[in-house]
Amino acid sequence: MNGAGSAVFHDDKVLFSMKLCKVKFFPNERSISVRVGSTLLKAASMAGVHINASCGGAGTCGKCRAIIQEGSYRTESSIHLPEEDREKGYVLSCLTVVEGDCKVEIPKEARRGEGAQVATGIPGMELLKIGEREIRPRTKKVHLKISPPTIDDSISDWARLRRDLNSAGYGELTITCGLSVLRKMGRVLRESHWDVTVTLLWSSVELEVMDIEPGDVTQSRYGLAIDVGTTTVVAYLVHLNTGEVLDVESDLNAQIRCGEDVISRIVYATEIGTVEEVHDLVIETVSGLIKRLTRRNGIRAEDIDSVVAAGNTTMTHLLYGLDPRTIREEPYIPTVNLFPVIKAREIGIHSNPNASIYAVPGTASYVGGDITAGVLASEIYKSDALTIFIDIGTNGELVLGNSEWLVAASCSAGPAFEGGGVKFGMRACRGAIEGVRIDRETLEPECHVIGNAPPEGICGSGMIDVLAEMYMAGVIDPKGNFVPDLKTDRVRPGETGLEYVLVRKEETEIGRDIVLSASDIDNIIRTKGAIYAGFRTLLGEMGLTFREVERFIIAGGFGNYIDIEKAIILGLLPDLPEERFHFIGNSSIIGAYLVLLSKEMRLEAEEIARRMTYIELSVSRSFMDEYMSALFLPHTDMSAFPTVSEIMQQKRGSD
Amino acid sequence: MNGAGSAVFHDDKVLFSMKLCKVKFFPNERSISVRVGSTLLKAASMAGVHINASCGGAGTCGKCRAIIQEGSYRTESSIHLPEEDREKGYVLSCLTVVEGDCKVEIPKEARRGEGAQVATGIPGMELLKIGEREIRPRTKKVHLKISPPTIDDSISDWARLRRDLNSAGYGELTITCGLSVLRKMGRVLRESHWDVTVTLLWSSVELEVMDIEPGDVTQSRYGLAIDVGTTTVVAYLVHLNTGEVLDVESDLNAQIRCGEDVISRIVYATEIGTVEEVHDLVIETVSGLIKRLTRRNGIRAEDIDSVVAAGNTTMTHLLYGLDPRTIREEPYIPTVNLFPVIKAREIGIHSNPNASIYAVPGTASYVGGDITAGVLASEIYKSDALTIFIDIGTNGELVLGNSEWLVAASCSAGPAFEGGGVKFGMRACRGAIEGVRIDRETLEPECHVIGNAPPEGICGSGMIDVLAEMYMAGVIDPKGNFVPDLKTDRVRPGETGLEYVLVRKEETEIGRDIVLSASDIDNIIRTKGAIYAGFRTLLGEMGLTFREVERFIIAGGFGNYIDIEKAIILGLLPDLPEERFHFIGNSSIIGAYLVLLSKEMRLEAEEIARRMTYIELSVSRSFMDEYMSALFLPHTDMSAFPTVSEIMQQKRGSD
Repeated sequence: MNGAGSAVFHDDKVLFSMKLCKVKFFPNERSISVRVGSTLLKAASMAGVHINASCGGAGTCGKCRAIIQEGSYRTESSIHLPEEDREKGYVLSCLTVVEGDCKVEIPKEARRGEGAQVATGIPGMELLKIGEREIRPRTKKVHLKISPPTIDDSISDWARLRRDLNSAGYGELTITCGLSVLRKMGRVLRESHWDVTVTLLWSSVELEVMDIEPGDVTQSRYGLAIDVGTTTVVAYLVHLNTGEVLDVESDLNAQIRCGEDVISRIVYATEIGTVEEVHDLVIETVSGLIKRLTRRNGIRAEDIDSVVAAGNTTMTHLLYGLDPRTIREEPYIPTVNLFPVIKAREIGIHSNPNASIYAVPGTASYVGGDITAGVLASEIYKSDALTIFIDIGTNGELVLGNSEWLVAASCSAGPAFEGGGVKFGMRACRGAIEGVRIDRETLEPECHVIGNAPPEGICGSGMIDVLAEMYMAGVIDPKGNFVPDLKTDRVRPGETGLEYVLVRKEETEIGRDIVLSASDIDNIIRTKGAIYAGFRTLLGEMGLTFREVERFIIAGGFGNYIDIEKAIILGLLPDLPEERFHFIGNSSIIGAYLVLLSKEMRLEAEEIARRMTYIELSVSRSFMDEYMSALFLPHTDMSAFPTVSEIMQQKRGSD
Repeated sequence: MNGAGSAVFHDDKVLFSMKLCKVKFFPNERSISVRVGSTLLKAASMAGVHINASCGGAGTCGKCRAIIQEGSYRTESSIHLPEEDREKGYVLSCLTVVEGDCKVEIPKEARRGEGAQVATGIPGMELLKIGEREIRPRTKKVHLKISPPTIDDSISDWARLRRDLNSAGYGELTITCGLSVLRKMGRVLRESHWDVTVTLLWSSVELEVMDIEPGDVTQSRYGLAIDVGTTTVVAYLVHLNTGEVLDVESDLNAQIRCGEDVISRIVYATEIGTVEEVHDLVIETVSGLIKRLTRRNGIRAEDIDSVVAAGNTTMTHLLYGLDPRTIREEPYIPTVNLFPVIKAREIGIHSNPNASIYAVPGTASYVGGDITAGVLASEIYKSDALTIFIDIGTNGELVLGNSEWLVAASCSAGPAFEGGGVKFGMRACRGAIEGVRIDRETLEPECHVIGNAPPEGICGSGMIDVLAEMYMAGVIDPKGNFVPDLKTDRVRPGETGLEYVLVRKEETEIGRDIVLSASDIDNIIRTKGAIYAGFRTLLGEMGLTFREVERFIIAGGFGNYIDIEKAIILGLLPDLPEERFHFIGNSSIIGAYLVLLSKEMRLEAEEIARRMTYIELSVSRSFMDEYMSALFLPHTDMSAFPTVSEIMQQKRGSD
């Protein structure tokens, strides 16, 4: 342990009430919360900011230069950093540890080529300061020095090993052993001169010896938390002794070639290709992540003992190779919500072949383990405060409740905010327009693009911005229709009706005008309408209104970047004080991470999945009514949006 | 159930206190105990008497003719049996059920070509009348009619199945499910319209759904008990609802090509070939048996849910694919004595891929699961009577004890009685000389050959006979040396010293003289010496003598055919009244069968394996002394063999 922060370590009961600080990187403005004492290089990696470090962080290449604009840190001098540069404020990222919040500039020469997928970072790591949780993963490595057999003490190798495990205090549960371990046991015991490390795997009823290795390798013990997203798969490499997230990696889900949303994946798996084929694609993606994580961190894949994945029900079915067909057929029944623990070798994941694989349990076909993970990470199930949790992804899953009850639903919101059904829609990565302001007079737009690059399209937060701005600037009316006879050439007839030109082709990366068409606007309004209708229906089912909701927790990849005010103007979020809204980023992977680290968290996840009452909105009459009412900006019932009414009145007044 | 006998059936708790009767077949004089009400055809098959029945026992081919010489039976008439034959006493075996002890002649035309391996039969089935044991196999098939899901009752398929299993009373243990079953669950449930049979597999701590099939197939539920012998592998096909042994099949262990005894198998697996190769050979043998059993009985291999194997420690290690190297290296430690339950697919056995495979536990490297099975089958662990159990196979394993204690040892007797190390030695099958008498005057032998065929060699019981006869006829002296100057041309110089011609080449199948050489005699004496020394050492360790031993139980393939008197003359068995000796045949497979049928029997087997105290004779000084003293006929201490002394004195008197 590098001693910094307030973490308390005691044997394997590590309390991770660690002290965190926030590091913000420029010019790309990515922020990350990391443990005090982390190197700048690791913080950058976790934030998805790629810094050149060809020596891998050993302090010998001198490439990972950075300038700390402000903040508290500690650094070492190096012959690889000339004194004149040091005087200008340069440090080497690998030799610098943060001791408080910092603002850090990465000079151009230190930035790595950004062709690759932008890593997602750990935007929700701040959450880990919530509560004090013990680190007790499902696996443990135990070092044993065993007395060799003699004629007078001639019990079998396996009985001898069990005897020592009993003496070491592991005799409470039945101890079992798989065939692959038995097959090498005799050799490993003798070649190591009876000095071995065994990896133990707890199930609820048994303790399994899942590996045996020579010598003391109790420190080589890693786990993987995975968010199996429909679009992106993210993995944390975690040291299971300390709970530390060593590295993060992400990639597109290779299933994307079978369709963008879960329904098209199911159709592909059951009608066009095979379940096996689609299963193999996600395994290929996960294996790629493992390969990169293990190489970069110099560890062996066999030292990954435990994997916890969170994803929607279709994604977890396909991860396990289960037929997802019935998820799509009324009455929408998954094969399983409470996934069994399986072995890595059963689905071909290239970790330790006996590693436990576990998918965070879900509640229904359209409220999956990613939502359970989010509820776990956000701890809404522990709080007295009435909370709405929303994951604005393809489906727009909602959870409403508190420590006493939880109801959940899926709005079938559609993939607009993830780029689907919108001509220039794209995910929130480099080149995406994520913020827009439209001049009220000239109707000229001003766009903010991720990575300050020439734009390629619009991501979810950009769509919210542009629609709210178009509405407030009077480009569209409350129904989303273009207002006629505007004095601007930004609005023009396009292929499918009128469209608004957001960026002219000369200024784009793609050499085409980036526009928002009437049909795009329709799709976005339908999406926001479904989500808002979901809120209302769920509240109505419980006899509640928005007034009683104390907190809105917004999860999902692009959640962090939403402009609350504009989301309210759009009618995506209800008209409530801004302090009630909280962003937690990718809560799916944080939940998976918690389950990976703690058997108790796994039980809590199962309890959450069981407790959540699923409400099927697709058959609800009141949902359809609410949906129709929500297909306006912000809503047919303006009285529910007093702040927006006020803004619009002021606007009219100033016109 | 065909209602005969006194079997009591109640749900799955079948008490198998069945009434048995003995059927003896001529001309080959094989006997078998079968349940009253069994068909003659089945009795013959179980006795290893092959009857032509090309219709498979359907009563339509008319080939399985037999004549019942005496006994109680019931038969049906058939157009396939002409009335004139019926009047001569012919019956069709498939249409005749035995109702009491019978003597049956199989006419030549009904005998099947006997090129194939002679099946071992079920010589120990009589044992099953001991006690009343409940049939409670590790697996069970349960028929469920499940109410289909609706929008209002939308729990997952797996939760729905569990709910019904709980309602049906299986909720006591945690219910789990493997991946392969989950993968087909959704399809099977819907295609069967929610009318399914699930196969449940009990472990000590969990209940696993190991298969799901459409409709009610609770009657298709089979198990396999296997004796994995170093030389021969025998399998019983068992109906798990009734406990009935439906069929028996045996074959040479294909590993025989890697060496005849366990040591040469270990050498081959670890120095010449690979463990995997030798493992594959036994799996190939077992798969062959399964194929023949399932075809002949018209069942699917997938309906075999459970397999229990008994064998010596080397054989069970190789069955599981475990490295047997350390069994051979001092201090002779196996990887495992208490074998874990594994899945058929893990070792490639072609039953239901999820079938449980379990090897009866052993006590030490040279006292394996076959001995535990023998102790279980013979129930010596339940009796107050002090008993010696001996399996005269390659190793000559001994168990001494009663309900209070058990000690076990292996004599390393060598394979002489199984045909090894004896020039014309062979196993007890067709063509083997199994009995010999030598005329005291002329010194001419009279041989009894299995199957009344021209002889090919001598089996174990034949060796005992011929040595005892040669000794009593004065052909050899107490040291086993040929007596000089005998007036017979049966003794002559051979390739390696003097030899006795047992059968002249004209009368043999092989066209060579079948002889017993001085070196053969040496080997047989060393084998019998080791066994007798084993008895004495084990008794000595416990401060006991033969006098206190109330029962000798002799197991092993050829045990049934030993002539007790001659074995005493040889000094293989102690000089005790004949009524103390009991033969139980292949107790290894009977033990495996009991474990297959009952979870309680499995626990008892484990308890026996744990309770037996292993004594390593190879390092015992007193064993070496005893062994040296036993290298005489019958023994250096003639006072221990009063009956033999008397016989020899009478002989000398008559000379």
